[in-house]
Amino acid sequence: MRVTQLFVPTLRETPAEAEVISHQLMLRAGMMRKSAAGVYTYLPLGYRTIRKIEQIVREEMDAKGGQEVLLPIVQPAELWQESGRWQVYGDEMFRLKDRHKRDFCLGPTHEEIITDIARGEVRSYKQLPLLFYQIQNKYRDERRPRFGLMRGREFIMKDLYSFDRDEEGLDISYRKMYDAYCRVFSRCGLDFRVVEADSGPIGGKVSHEFMVLADTGESTIVFCLQCDYAANVEIAPCMPEEPAREEPKPMEPVLTPHMRTIEDLAEFLHMPANRLTKTLFFEADGKPIAVLVRGDRNLNETKLKNTLNCIDLDFAGEELVKKVTGAEVGFVGPVGLTGVKIIADREVPLIVNTVVGANRNDYHLVNVNPGRDFQIDQVADLRTIEPGEPCPVCGVPLQSTLGIEVGHIFKLGTKYSKSMGAAYLDENGKERLAIMGTYGIGVSRTMAAAIEQNHDQDGIIWPVPIAPYHVVVVPVSVRDPEQMGIAEKIYEDLRAAGVEVVIDDRNERPGVKFKDADLIGYPFRLTVGAKAPAEGTVELRSRRTGETTVVSIREAIAATREALGMSG
Amino acid sequence: MRVTQLFVPTLRETPAEAEVISHQLMLRAGMMRKSAAGVYTYLPLGYRTIRKIEQIVREEMDAKGGQEVLLPIVQPAELWQESGRWQVYGDEMFRLKDRHKRDFCLGPTHEEIITDIARGEVRSYKQLPLLFYQIQNKYRDERRPRFGLMRGREFIMKDLYSFDRDEEGLDISYRKMYDAYCRVFSRCGLDFRVVEADSGPIGGKVSHEFMVLADTGESTIVFCLQCDYAANVEIAPCMPEEPAREEPKPMEPVLTPHMRTIEDLAEFLHMPANRLTKTLFFEADGKPIAVLVRGDRNLNETKLKNTLNCIDLDFAGEELVKKVTGAEVGFVGPVGLTGVKIIADREVPLIVNTVVGANRNDYHLVNVNPGRDFQIDQVADLRTIEPGEPCPVCGVPLQSTLGIEVGHIFKLGTKYSKSMGAAYLDENGKERLAIMGTYGIGVSRTMAAAIEQNHDQDGIIWPVPIAPYHVVVVPVSVRDPEQMGIAEKIYEDLRAAGVEVVIDDRNERPGVKFKDADLIGYPFRLTVGAKAPAEGTVELRSRRTGETTVVSIREAIAATREALGMSG
Repeated sequence: MRVTQLFVPTLRETPAEAEVISHQLMLRAGMMRKSAAGVYTYLPLGYRTIRKIEQIVREEMDAKGGQEVLLPIVQPAELWQESGRWQVYGDEMFRLKDRHKRDFCLGPTHEEIITDIARGEVRSYKQLPLLFYQIQNKYRDERRPRFGLMRGREFIMKDLYSFDRDEEGLDISYRKMYDAYCRVFSRCGLDFRVVEADSGPIGGKVSHEFMVLADTGESTIVFCLQCDYAANVEIAPCMPEEPAREEPKPMEPVLTPHMRTIEDLAEFLHMPANRLTKTLFFEADGKPIAVLVRGDRNLNETKLKNTLNCIDLDFAGEELVKKVTGAEVGFVGPVGLTGVKIIADREVPLIVNTVVGANRNDYHLVNVNPGRDFQIDQVADLRTIEPGEPCPVCGVPLQSTLGIEVGHIFKLGTKYSKSMGAAYLDENGKERLAIMGTYGIGVSRTMAAAIEQNHDQDGIIWPVPIAPYHVVVVPVSVRDPEQMGIAEKIYEDLRAAGVEVVIDDRNERPGVKFKDADLIGYPFRLTVGAKAPAEGTVELRSRRTGETTVVSIREAIAATREALGMSG
Repeated sequence: MRVTQLFVPTLRETPAEAEVISHQLMLRAGMMRKSAAGVYTYLPLGYRTIRKIEQIVREEMDAKGGQEVLLPIVQPAELWQESGRWQVYGDEMFRLKDRHKRDFCLGPTHEEIITDIARGEVRSYKQLPLLFYQIQNKYRDERRPRFGLMRGREFIMKDLYSFDRDEEGLDISYRKMYDAYCRVFSRCGLDFRVVEADSGPIGGKVSHEFMVLADTGESTIVFCLQCDYAANVEIAPCMPEEPAREEPKPMEPVLTPHMRTIEDLAEFLHMPANRLTKTLFFEADGKPIAVLVRGDRNLNETKLKNTLNCIDLDFAGEELVKKVTGAEVGFVGPVGLTGVKIIADREVPLIVNTVVGANRNDYHLVNVNPGRDFQIDQVADLRTIEPGEPCPVCGVPLQSTLGIEVGHIFKLGTKYSKSMGAAYLDENGKERLAIMGTYGIGVSRTMAAAIEQNHDQDGIIWPVPIAPYHVVVVPVSVRDPEQMGIAEKIYEDLRAAGVEVVIDDRNERPGVKFKDADLIGYPFRLTVGAKAPAEGTVELRSRRTGETTVVSIREAIAATREALGMSG
């Protein structure tokens, strides 16, 4: 392809709308443009990379027996009402009515549609297992769409659904996808890690996330160097720390004016934060709830939501807190609280002589002892693990890193086959529910994650397998017919040799072309300058290493192919 | 692929929901299922054919310099308000609001989105021409979705948009697409015809439709055997027929009880229908209008709508007709009519002593003469051409046939670049509007049209280039290890030879497998029966001709490849 004929509107400046690197670089490299908040147009270079990722995904799904289908984006509400998710999805689901006022949604995922197909067509155990997949747009009406393709409202996913006879079958399908996903991200040239994860509203008990490691990742991962344990901090289980023993003392109020935060309070009382107890108020499906964690710990909302098994979970507003406790946020606590469920992290009942808010402005209570001074309704693991805490498998201190979730696989079990009635007859003619799994790869997100992981101050550094083109040939002066002739010849020869190549035939200064080449991130640049006609040499430069090799024109094709890792 | 592992839920019975052949056969052959009215799931075989058509389209678009992009399905209302089409599209457009109550639509087409990209990024004449295309879902909320993929609400299209400096540039881009479309439909193995067509709400003056010829087509085409003229009857211009000359006679009322139709009236008055004049009442954008055509002619609503240049056009209700004329439908006419625009076909002013309704129940007026007895406000070509009428180019009588529209190309001119401000600077630094064209192929519709054109009572007869698989190998008895061994060997050898092949390894009676093979429409079937081990032969059967050839096992691969037209 000739750059004069390729639509790549590069930008010198970083657009103000872009907060993260991948978003900035995709805009600057002319790969995409915003059409609405969280809704993007993929321009030719961006879409080329998308299609390369799609093809890798397709090949790996096919290799595991996946059958490609295309499911509707516009889905009837009835199916979602059957599964119970018409309510669960809330404002995150785009909803619409047709001209006859019937309700539809834009599919955020396709469990309902595919379960509807399966219940209509699967009769016998002989038809199972079945693995259906598709690659297409998904929709999620994010409250605050941002970070470009990292959190869009319209985005491209591969989703696969497995139907098996039993749990053993599901284990096999799940393992197939686990392996296929590892192959997909390896083939994309990405550094990634598989972690145990939360299942969220999709449902099911077992799930793994595939995380592309990047300093800019929004997910925190803990992992063990001793065993192979790795998990999203959202779900990594925490061991309670045993506090020092002491005798319970009588509870008493203390004046603590303006001491609203744990840090201020700990300093004021000359106590370490791990002796204090935080009381947080939430609304869970509309009901107020008090949540207790040790003063130095972070509440884990994912664990809380899973424990409560609720649909909506939000921090309670100041008004509600005041109504329930009689005091302002910062001075609230569990003692004397009525009509509110109290749920506590596993460490809370272990603390002797702790400090809590007094439910009276500017007062706290000291020497409070759970069980004696107030009752806990439920105890659970509700906090977020910290690096250095023991591995739940082998006990060695955990490491932590940041990642971007690009894939997520779930064992669903019978969640959908039960609610929607997807059953088959087994060998004995007995009706049994199909056992399901669901497996997703964020295709557009993988492109963004690849950039977050592979860039420098000059632009993108594409891994070869997903680069829009492999090589750019840059004639330093297009007005020099000798240079141009050599560049054209190399361009044509590279094409003939199966290399995906563009020639920057624009009448621009070499600096402009070099800057664009670095920004766009072609893995290799072949520069045809004054030395080409004079000395018969050109320069082959690696975008990743910056290394430049002078090669003879005659050897340019072979050298480029070798640099790209192409055989022969 | 093994049939035991391929999800192809064939049906013996024709589902009641399916009215047309392609819909019936795609359901019966297990290629798709309905998910909602006009919304379908493509199952593995159906989606394979879709992807083959897409790939042919992609290659031909790329060959003409098209650049593939992906535009949003969810589009902001603001862009459609700018172009003025937010209103024009009416109920046919799916509309929705996001969580912030902002208006969006599901793209029925993408002129607004792409013009928005162009106005943001195109600065100079040097960047033109630009040809952008995409392949993805489109949405149209049909009042009555039906005929399966022929008139769905969610369907797959390829759309390309061209941006040129001037009309000459547009002519070149238009010609490129015209040629590319011919290649696409030829490569799909379809019998088609290109016809002049109406531009409809897309806009522009010149347009051509690509029609797949089929007895079940919903479009009527007229064409000339002498010159290469061909057009959709919606727009084919009509020559007025000169009537016999006679002297005007005095107008008078005649009692015509219950004579509401032209046929009844002609018989009652002993006059040929071409002496009478029909008066039809419409509402055009809410205003009543009287339309006159000769008694034996058919009004052409497309021509009427284009002449009136209105957005909404509907037959006037009985109430309105009565209010305007004082009489009931069947007895209405132009004489004495006030406050209503009268528009007449070009033949109407030529008729001497015609008959019209008297605007009085059970009465008509005879010897009516336009100009003398009533005034016509506008004369235009408003009727539909009939086979046998003269070709508008060479005058030879026209032929007619039926077709299915699968492609449509339009010269838009500046309709969108003007309303949305997509301009560039020319060689002299002067700002000029980009000249646009728009070009669409109904991908899912092409699949349906291919079936309408290629089927028999037993099922689909796929053209080889878009068949989901080329060959099915059918072992007559899977329990016979010798037969199975030969079948497996042939299956593997065909795969190795680049043939897209399935093996029907189901433990079913041969009759069931043959019926499925015919229904699904594999172009060739290789039957491995008792003669295979005994005599070393298998049967190669063409689905299209029904011809069966006995070939030796050794020659089976070469014979199959030759039958498929594969080289070597």
